[in-house]
Amino acid sequence: MTYGLFTGFTAHPGRGAELLDVLLAAAEALRADPACLHYVAGTAEDDPDAVWVWEAWIDRAAHDAALEPPEVRAAIARARPLLAGTAGRTAVRLHAGKGLPGGG
Amino acid sequence: MTYGLFTGFTAHPGRGAELLDVLLAAAEALRADPACLHYVAGTAEDDPDAVWVWEAWIDRAAHDAALEPPEVRAAIARARPLLAGTAGRTAVRLHAGKGLPGGG
Repeated sequence: MTYGLFTGFTAHPGRGAELLDVLLAAAEALRADPACLHYVAGTAEDDPDAVWVWEAWIDRAAHDAALEPPEVRAAIARARPLLAGTAGRTAVRLHAGKGLPGGG
Repeated sequence: MTYGLFTGFTAHPGRGAELLDVLLAAAEALRADPACLHYVAGTAEDDPDAVWVWEAWIDRAAHDAALEPPEVRAAIARARPLLAGTAGRTAVRLHAGKGLPGGG
């Protein structure tokens, strides 16, 4: 089953843009991973330090495996000092819809 | 700025599948709307009555306008009796990432 994940990060004051850059670099790296269907990042409408990521993967195992490579671990290490906390994490068994390759 | 929206709905016990059907019918209708980039729906991993929708639109105005047509209002009317409540709604100014036409 296609796996969706919506995650919120709270950056230290004024560090939201840096955190977003780290996440968007991860998105670029994931362009080469066919198991990653979506990896998009942005900020809350009223708070540039509230950073949100939506991900969609062919399944949960693919998502979990993608956390292992050294370059991903390095990106997580770069992000960690920018983080004041997390702001929610919701996993979704994606059934279907517009925007997924093959429609679901 | 690309507009993302992650919304949670709580269906009455046992009505999650019906609610999902209404939402997925909306997703089908939105295939014809170029302003809608993503509209995918699914359920929580541990609760089939917790239904989640991720949307991405070219901008917020396009999202708001898409709620107006009669067929969408009819779909909302069909969904309403299935709903026990909502479970969060997060709007995101999407900067970029994998899976958005044009990359962001």
